[in-house]
Amino acid sequence: MQLGLIGLGKMGFNMRERLRKAGHEVVGYDRNPDVTDVASLADLVGALEAPRTVWIMVPSGDPTRQTVQQLGELLSEGDLVIDGGNSRFTDDSANAAHLDTKGIGYLDCGVSGGVWGLDVGYGLMVGGDKKHVEHAMPIFDALRPEGPREEGFAHAGPVGAGHFSKMVHNGIEYGLMQAYAEGFELLEASELVTDVPATIKAWQRGTVVRSWLLDLLVRALDSDPELDDLRGYVEDSGEGRWTVEEAINHSVPAPVISAALFARFASRQDDSPAMRAVAALRNQFGGHAVQKA
Amino acid sequence: MQLGLIGLGKMGFNMRERLRKAGHEVVGYDRNPDVTDVASLADLVGALEAPRTVWIMVPSGDPTRQTVQQLGELLSEGDLVIDGGNSRFTDDSANAAHLDTKGIGYLDCGVSGGVWGLDVGYGLMVGGDKKHVEHAMPIFDALRPEGPREEGFAHAGPVGAGHFSKMVHNGIEYGLMQAYAEGFELLEASELVTDVPATIKAWQRGTVVRSWLLDLLVRALDSDPELDDLRGYVEDSGEGRWTVEEAINHSVPAPVISAALFARFASRQDDSPAMRAVAALRNQFGGHAVQKA
Amino acid sequence: MQLGLIGLGKMGFNMRERLRKAGHEVVGYDRNPDVTDVASLADLVGALEAPRTVWIMVPSGDPTRQTVQQLGELLSEGDLVIDGGNSRFTDDSANAAHLDTKGIGYLDCGVSGGVWGLDVGYGLMVGGDKKHVEHAMPIFDALRPEGPREEGFAHAGPVGAGHFSKMVHNGIEYGLMQAYAEGFELLEASELVTDVPATIKAWQRGTVVRSWLLDLLVRALDSDPELDDLRGYVEDSGEGRWTVEEAINHSVPAPVISAALFARFASRQDDSPAMRAVAALRNQFGGHAVQKA
Amino acid sequence: MQLGLIGLGKMGFNMRERLRKAGHEVVGYDRNPDVTDVASLADLVGALEAPRTVWIMVPSGDPTRQTVQQLGELLSEGDLVIDGGNSRFTDDSANAAHLDTKGIGYLDCGVSGGVWGLDVGYGLMVGGDKKHVEHAMPIFDALRPEGPREEGFAHAGPVGAGHFSKMVHNGIEYGLMQAYAEGFELLEASELVTDVPATIKAWQRGTVVRSWLLDLLVRALDSDPELDDLRGYVEDSGEGRWTVEEAINHSVPAPVISAALFARFASRQDDSPAMRAVAALRNQFGGHAVQKA
Repeated sequence: MQLGLIGLGKMGFNMRERLRKAGHEVVGYDRNPDVTDVASLADLVGALEAPRTVWIMVPSGDPTRQTVQQLGELLSEGDLVIDGGNSRFTDDSANAAHLDTKGIGYLDCGVSGGVWGLDVGYGLMVGGDKKHVEHAMPIFDALRPEGPREEGFAHAGPVGAGHFSKMVHNGIEYGLMQAYAEGFELLEASELVTDVPATIKAWQRGTVVRSWLLDLLVRALDSDPELDDLRGYVEDSGEGRWTVEEAINHSVPAPVISAALFARFASRQDDSPAMRAVAALRNQFGGHAVQKA
Repeated sequence: MQLGLIGLGKMGFNMRERLRKAGHEVVGYDRNPDVTDVASLADLVGALEAPRTVWIMVPSGDPTRQTVQQLGELLSEGDLVIDGGNSRFTDDSANAAHLDTKGIGYLDCGVSGGVWGLDVGYGLMVGGDKKHVEHAMPIFDALRPEGPREEGFAHAGPVGAGHFSKMVHNGIEYGLMQAYAEGFELLEASELVTDVPATIKAWQRGTVVRSWLLDLLVRALDSDPELDDLRGYVEDSGEGRWTVEEAINHSVPAPVISAALFARFASRQDDSPAMRAVAALRNQFGGHAVQKA
Repeated sequence: MQLGLIGLGKMGFNMRERLRKAGHEVVGYDRNPDVTDVASLADLVGALEAPRTVWIMVPSGDPTRQTVQQLGELLSEGDLVIDGGNSRFTDDSANAAHLDTKGIGYLDCGVSGGVWGLDVGYGLMVGGDKKHVEHAMPIFDALRPEGPREEGFAHAGPVGAGHFSKMVHNGIEYGLMQAYAEGFELLEASELVTDVPATIKAWQRGTVVRSWLLDLLVRALDSDPELDDLRGYVEDSGEGRWTVEEAINHSVPAPVISAALFARFASRQDDSPAMRAVAALRNQFGGHAVQKA
Repeated sequence: MQLGLIGLGKMGFNMRERLRKAGHEVVGYDRNPDVTDVASLADLVGALEAPRTVWIMVPSGDPTRQTVQQLGELLSEGDLVIDGGNSRFTDDSANAAHLDTKGIGYLDCGVSGGVWGLDVGYGLMVGGDKKHVEHAMPIFDALRPEGPREEGFAHAGPVGAGHFSKMVHNGIEYGLMQAYAEGFELLEASELVTDVPATIKAWQRGTVVRSWLLDLLVRALDSDPELDDLRGYVEDSGEGRWTVEEAINHSVPAPVISAALFARFASRQDDSPAMRAVAALRNQFGGHAVQKA
């Protein structure tokens, strides 16, 4: 089928390619003239036959919200907008309501898989009305991995459920990564385990901890056996924070996901104000030596 | 080759079967007369030709230590003992030293895979001398999964390194399980995600969180969609505790693995003394209502 | 000086008494006819001479916001409103802006001390303009404890800073309480320490952990030496959640405060969905026994 | 009464002074000739009349164990040894048993208070036989703070209970310090609270979080308002580790105390291996930028 695709960055660019390989007609728009198919959003809309389906794949927050606003002006009754970016689920109901006033449908779709999705396919979690989901199913089927549909695609619930699911997925991802990371550090610290990369590589088959993330860790260790080409500095892009906030909103204990999030915060501090306070206290009561700044 | 196998429980029983399928001659001993091949340890040793290789697969702690003691009396110079159970790595050097006084070799082997290992094969992490590892390699090759040897088998280091690696593997496992579990609870708590099992099932392909543990969670949800046939009561069998203790010994921060361990401890408490203290304090300073026992 | 005081619950009732003892003229209003001095908010405003100072001490959220709205209609230019309740600091700028349109001043004041404040005095953290703070200083001086003003009163910053400081104060409080509680549980669990209440009582003088909360724990243990008259079930009233959310907003690691918050969440669960997931996983891979619901 | 005191460092030196002020006769021994009263342990023993009481105040571990061994040779039946250092409680039963073979008594005494103890007195937690406790009570009474004995002294249980109690005390101390520290960092991070030292100073009276540690934090902020004269680098001296290990041994959840311990470990890392692993993983799956070492 025909699809308008807005945003041709690391994710959108690959998705256009995967969709085209599957035989779909994709009109892509990006501000970058090197990758765009059309000159403007208006041109993109003009290039599609009604009823149109337009997929947004731009950064979450203002860029996505503004794109929805613009599409509300350019699209027509019966068209469908899909936000496939990493928007916070709380944006979805406002987006859907805005478009609904013009009779335009809305789906939110969490997309997982990163740069590997081009070849492997993307895991998809969708929120919205059943009729819209069915309408866009050829697109979802082309994007998702080979195999049974239900193992790479879910209609998770109404508008918002797709991004909520993706948020939780990413929260889990934080916890998984930190678990492997702590294990890696402990193996590295041990004088007993003399071949850490080989030990982790051997976890790829048969073990309880085998996973795709483990495969990626093995891949990283293949090229940098002690991971000392890079710094222990880790950014976060929001979903981990939102997951902990939703855990709090729902009174759900989330000790592991929050610990993983806080470890990232701490990794970015040159010096910790909190630990200065602890050092100051030890010095005050015990005369313990402190390190001067 | 010929192998003596001591302990034919959930793990050992399946291992004997897998080894026999691979063409090895296994003499198994277990106290349970329904499954044993021989009547005693002495009979097992008597049934093997020198140099003998004997694999111990009994519960860790005293049962394993006592079995090593007995084998020290029954075996001869040039024989080899492999402890494949979940022993604490700190037992290995004593076991090895004891056997070494009689010229008997020793390997420690962490075995991962649970009840699935019979068909899939077991992930193996081994500690000890290279010559012993090479001698037992036909056994390791039969037990490990199909595929490249290094993806299911590692010689991690000297005596102790196998169990140390397995301990860390299990510590990671605790963190992974808790991460999925927190995500599951948050999905369940959300009013947005109306089909939790379908959402988790859709993570099996293409996503960053895909893993064997996720596949098992999907399997559990297939038969019990809200997991309400069982209680949130979780045992632990030692490796998680040892991992945190080793993290402490090596000054390695382990916030995620320890949080997962403590969540298990808490799951087994009908009532928490600590939280009684917090409730008592709130009542003391704020006159906040408490629930009576 | 003259003060209108809205809300005569556990906190407000005592504050009226403390203020009157200090010689101030307090007109109190509460919906409860047994404690109120006047029949309505309008009557309260009518009973005060301009420029009026009115202190709000009602539950945070809607009750406080509605009271501010009503006071906006009843008060006049030059009057001053102080919100002394446990409002989230994010409410303060809206409240202040609303009142400012009518020339009415606004202060937010965090009040700590619970039921003990009547006799001991209340710790006060205030946000707002200096001129308003100075105007209300006689009230603050009467409410705060004896001793140097700066040890029981702070002008923390502009509007919102009072409630922000109180929020952080309460977040710290969560962590302190949980630290004592974990220590209490470990002492109780030990077979070595045969007199736990006496041991904790002995921490009141000379030790590093001496504190008012410790004194309260001793007090609780005096009447219930094993704290087994109550259940380990702990409510929370918002400030702990907000503290963790603000920590996330500011990328501040808060492992201790969040752990204390999550321990409260967990204390209120009869059965943990997360731990059901962990139990299900253990059963899936290892055939480990589970407890049926 | 007469006391031999071994170890005249930061703690022992002050204790000798406090004891002498209280009228006791103290013979002190230290390897440092500038502070010692006698030239050797043998001289110290020779200077005391039987039955002798000797207090050990040297570093825990080997120094203390060796001192006990030497005293076992020098002392006589009916004498009493008190270990007042920060020994792990697991050392006490061995020490007591060794001395008991010669009829020498043993007490373990946890001592809290740091450099302030000289003036304020020390909080004391003692383990051992009642008769020995009673014999040494004049010493305990001189060391503990003014006020009711039971508020600064406890006979916690049999041998080992004193050091166990002190270990838990210090574990709690870790949690308390980290709670204040997280609050301090969040106040510092907020743009709302413009006077952080004043805000924390105002918590000293009337609030729920008032404590001696808070007083010390105020003291530190008085001389260094943003604590930027020192680095956020924090040592630990063992008791926090032991507390977490004992929590694990007793299946007691200790999320707060362990989080505080791990924060110290992390504070001492220039670069975290674990966070390098997380960074590597993010780069692998998402092409996310990493910081090069």
